[in-house]
Amino acid sequence: MYDVRITGLGSYLPALMHTNETLPPLDAPLAPGDAERIGVFRRGWADAAAGESIAEMAAAAGRQALRRAGVDAAALDLVILANWTERRYLPDHAPKLQALLGATGAAAFDLGTACAGFVYGIGIAHAFLEGGRFARALVVASEVTSRRGRPGSKSSLIFGDGAGAAVLERGAPAGARILGYELATEGALHGAMEIDERGWVKTHIPQRELNALAARSFAEPSARLLARAGRTMADVDWVVPHSGTAGIQATLVRALGVPAEKVLSNFARVGNVSSAAIPIALDEFVSAGRIRQGDVVLSPTTGSGWYAAALLYEMGTLDVTPEPG
Amino acid sequence: MYDVRITGLGSYLPALMHTNETLPPLDAPLAPGDAERIGVFRRGWADAAAGESIAEMAAAAGRQALRRAGVDAAALDLVILANWTERRYLPDHAPKLQALLGATGAAAFDLGTACAGFVYGIGIAHAFLEGGRFARALVVASEVTSRRGRPGSKSSLIFGDGAGAAVLERGAPAGARILGYELATEGALHGAMEIDERGWVKTHIPQRELNALAARSFAEPSARLLARAGRTMADVDWVVPHSGTAGIQATLVRALGVPAEKVLSNFARVGNVSSAAIPIALDEFVSAGRIRQGDVVLSPTTGSGWYAAALLYEMGTLDVTPEPG
Repeated sequence: MYDVRITGLGSYLPALMHTNETLPPLDAPLAPGDAERIGVFRRGWADAAAGESIAEMAAAAGRQALRRAGVDAAALDLVILANWTERRYLPDHAPKLQALLGATGAAAFDLGTACAGFVYGIGIAHAFLEGGRFARALVVASEVTSRRGRPGSKSSLIFGDGAGAAVLERGAPAGARILGYELATEGALHGAMEIDERGWVKTHIPQRELNALAARSFAEPSARLLARAGRTMADVDWVVPHSGTAGIQATLVRALGVPAEKVLSNFARVGNVSSAAIPIALDEFVSAGRIRQGDVVLSPTTGSGWYAAALLYEMGTLDVTPEPG
Repeated sequence: MYDVRITGLGSYLPALMHTNETLPPLDAPLAPGDAERIGVFRRGWADAAAGESIAEMAAAAGRQALRRAGVDAAALDLVILANWTERRYLPDHAPKLQALLGATGAAAFDLGTACAGFVYGIGIAHAFLEGGRFARALVVASEVTSRRGRPGSKSSLIFGDGAGAAVLERGAPAGARILGYELATEGALHGAMEIDERGWVKTHIPQRELNALAARSFAEPSARLLARAGRTMADVDWVVPHSGTAGIQATLVRALGVPAEKVLSNFARVGNVSSAAIPIALDEFVSAGRIRQGDVVLSPTTGSGWYAAALLYEMGTLDVTPEPG
């Protein structure tokens, strides 16, 4: 069995990053304090006509991750593209990503699992690498969450677009070592949320229940994961979660029993980018030197479906040089 | 590393199986010899209102596979549902399948990869089982291909609905031992076929090119797979392919260089059921005693995206008792 490491991170945010002031007007203007309570002050809107389709954003993030890992796209064995916000029957998005990257030797497929897509994708890639069948994988999450909220609704404040990527290698000498992951599904709750016929998110359970569900979805996989890895929450230096809303992020802090200052999130600056949240945040906080070599990081996520998943890794040396030019 | 075996097979065909006579009229009546050339005389049309949704057909096939494997749904670690013919943003189909089965301990996710979905799903499950992370997986393909052809077109003769399932176990003493698999993607050809805005299939390359592409997609992964497994085509007792059309099946025979009588297909009786083709055919031919213990079977497939994949296995003892009642 091989060690599996993340050896490169990359991310992409749209050219158009709306502040609360530049967004089209809401149905009902915000009351004082609303913006602070919602907690998002900037989010991207992808323009597919300007080269910001799912596959193109994924390719931008993927290229950065490959460059930093020093891995040639042609050497990839596997490309997994997590996405749920743009769907079609066929073709899937991953083959186009494979072609854009020039990853001609890689099997490439799409993965859903809503906001849990990045962690599910890492789990699948890990399985192929740990056993030795594949040597190098790229996992990318790319979402246009902004299109899944009703224009004019408060969700248009929260939802943002973007992509995040990670290169995984087996037996690499450096990088972030994956200590473990948990993937769980609570299928009985598949009706909790849905996208309606207009393509907009609709929640079918009360907010209280949703918060309780989110709390359980963060706490249970994280506890199992730490136990399996022989660690405790006290060993965790940072939590880099997908949290979705400010309320759910507060729920997460209580559910995990971690000090709020251990939770690293750029939710306020990128909005809810769904499955892309964890790799985009990770790239930002590793690049900024906030997460350092030796730090143990927990990335819990929950996704409509219902999914709950978590990833545990120990940071190693990662090249985080910005894009040239 | 564990041996991985298929320990149970199951399949489901819709209650309504149209013969060529009961199908709604085509735009242009068939010329003499057309039906024989097309090669499909019976195909199922699923009725979602009568309990034949993607998840429900998958559950019927999955329950049969679990019963025959003697595996309790609650003991499953992983459920993969291959589907591309019915899409929505969220929830995915796999969580509903997980709930219908009572597979509460399993991570459950959807997989696309068009007609290659079953073989890709087996590959992913194999990776998790071989390395020992998971012990028991269910891979199901469930499709409503009939809805992706224009009503009245000749494709309505070819496309059929149905589901097929396989239980996989690590270190099981009996069952069909997986000798290997190959997963390939030719992303440069992602535009070869698409589903148009009405939900109907559209081919953007000439039939000649499509046949050449199919031939390459069958031949190359199969050759790599046999080489990796230390076998030759002469060691293969049966080919159970996904072939899509009668013309492509003829292409397959030439591309693989196998005698036509080694190719087992129920295409004439179920139509093109896309990703469900291989498990449905496998269930039929194993149940009928045609494929026997010790037989080496190759299952190549190709899918729009573009995907090419193949699976090689050696048949062992499998319970194939029909459903009670």
